Amino acid sequence: MFITFEGSEGSGKTTQARLLYEYLLGQEYPVVLTREPGGTRISDKVREILLDPSNTEILPRTEILLFSASRAQLSDRFIRPHLQQNHIVICDRYADSTMAYQGFGRVLDLQTLRIITDFATGGLRPDLTIYLDLPVEAGLQRRRGLSAGGATGRYGGQLPLFDKWDRLDAQELDFHRRVQRGYEELMKVEPERWHKVDAGRSIEQVQDDIRSKVLPLLEDRP
Amino acid sequence: MFITFEGSEGSGKTTQARLLYEYLLGQEYPVVLTREPGGTRISDKVREILLDPSNTEILPRTEILLFSASRAQLSDRFIRPHLQQNHIVICDRYADSTMAYQGFGRVLDLQTLRIITDFATGGLRPDLTIYLDLPVEAGLQRRRGLSAGGATGRYGGQLPLFDKWDRLDAQELDFHRRVQRGYEELMKVEPERWHKVDAGRSIEQVQDDIRSKVLPLLEDRP
Repeated sequence: MFITFEGSEGSGKTTQARLLYEYLLGQEYPVVLTREPGGTRISDKVREILLDPSNTEILPRTEILLFSASRAQLSDRFIRPHLQQNHIVICDRYADSTMAYQGFGRVLDLQTLRIITDFATGGLRPDLTIYLDLPVEAGLQRRRGLSAGGATGRYGGQLPLFDKWDRLDAQELDFHRRVQRGYEELMKVEPERWHKVDAGRSIEQVQDDIRSKVLPLLEDRP
Repeated sequence: MFITFEGSEGSGKTTQARLLYEYLLGQEYPVVLTREPGGTRISDKVREILLDPSNTEILPRTEILLFSASRAQLSDRFIRPHLQQNHIVICDRYADSTMAYQGFGRVLDLQTLRIITDFATGGLRPDLTIYLDLPVEAGLQRRRGLSAGGATGRYGGQLPLFDKWDRLDAQELDFHRRVQRGYEELMKVEPERWHKVDAGRSIEQVQDDIRSKVLPLLEDRP
C-alpha cells in the first residue's frame, strides 16, 4: 500500500502524514514515512541543491529534472523495496506535485512532464493519494504565520515566488490558483485514487477523516 | 557557432577541445569552452553528486536525470547567452553522450531519452559535432594508462563498470562497443552535423584535422 499526501502550501501535509504514520506505527502496522525531495542518500544531496536559498538561479526545467532525479532514486531504492516487503509507504508529496506545480502552475507541457515523471518512477503510482484541500489564501496565510517560526514547505521552497512572503502579490496568487486547479484536474482523471479532505478544520478532525479512509483499505490487505 | 566534442573513453576529447579553444582564442575569435556535466554553478553541484566515487548507488535513470538537469542549466544559462552574443561555444560532451551511453550503452528507450534531452536543452543542438573515433580497446587502454596519473574521463566516471580498470572484462567491452555503435547510428541520422576524426593519430595530427574542418566554417560566419 503506497499512500501519498498532496496539497497546496500550508495545507498541513507534513503534519498529517506524520500523524498517520505515528498512528499506524502505534497500531503495529509495518509502515515507513518519507518525503520529496529526499528520502535516500542521493536524493538528499539533490534536495540540498533544490532547497539551498542561495541557488536562486535554478531554472524551472532544471528544477523538474532535479526533482525527478531525486524521485527516481527514492522510487527504486526506498519505495519499491518496502512495497515488495508488503510495508505501507507514506510519502509527503510525489509525482502529482510535479504535474500540479510545474505542469499547471508553471504552464509547462503536461505530456512531456508525464513522460519524464513515468521515466523517473518507472511507472510506480500511489494506491491512494490524500489531497488536503484549502483555499489558496488560507494556506498562504498559514504558511506565512509558520515561516516566522522557521517552517516548512519544501516543494515550492526553491521557487523565487515562494520566498517573498512579504510581498504576496497577484502573480503569486495566480500561480497558486493554477496549482490548485491542476490538482482538481488530476483528481478528475483518476477519482478512485484520490481522497479529498477539507483541510480547513482542526488537525484532529482532518486526521480522523484520513484514518477513516485509510483503515478500511488496510483491513482488506492480504 | 556551437561545437561539441564526442567520443568514447580515452579518445582525447578534453585535450582536443582545449587545444581548439586555445587556438581560436589565439586567433582572437570570441570563444568559450565548457564541459559536461558542469559549466555553471548549479551544474557543478550536480557534477559533484555524479562524480563522487562514494555515490555508487546512483541508478541509471537517476543518472540520466542528473545529467539532464546539469545540461538544462548549462544550455540556458551559459551556451544560449554566449551564442546570442555571437560567440563560439565549444562543449566537451553534450546531449549525444546521453543517447550513446545511456540509450545505446545501457539499452534504454531512445525515444524517451530524446524527449528528456530535448526538454533539458530546450531543443538546442550543436552546429558541429567532432567525433573522435578510436577502437574501444585502444581507448580503454589509453584511459587505463592515464588513470594512474589521476585522469580524466568524466561522463562514464560514475558508472560502476568504469571504476574497475583492473578487471576489464567482456561485459565492459560489450558496453563500450554498444556506445560506439550508438555514435555510428547517431552520425547516420545527421551526417551533416558530424565530423568524424581518426583519433588514433598524434595529438597534433588530430588537432590539424579538426581545425581544417572548423576554420572554413568560421570564415563563413556573419
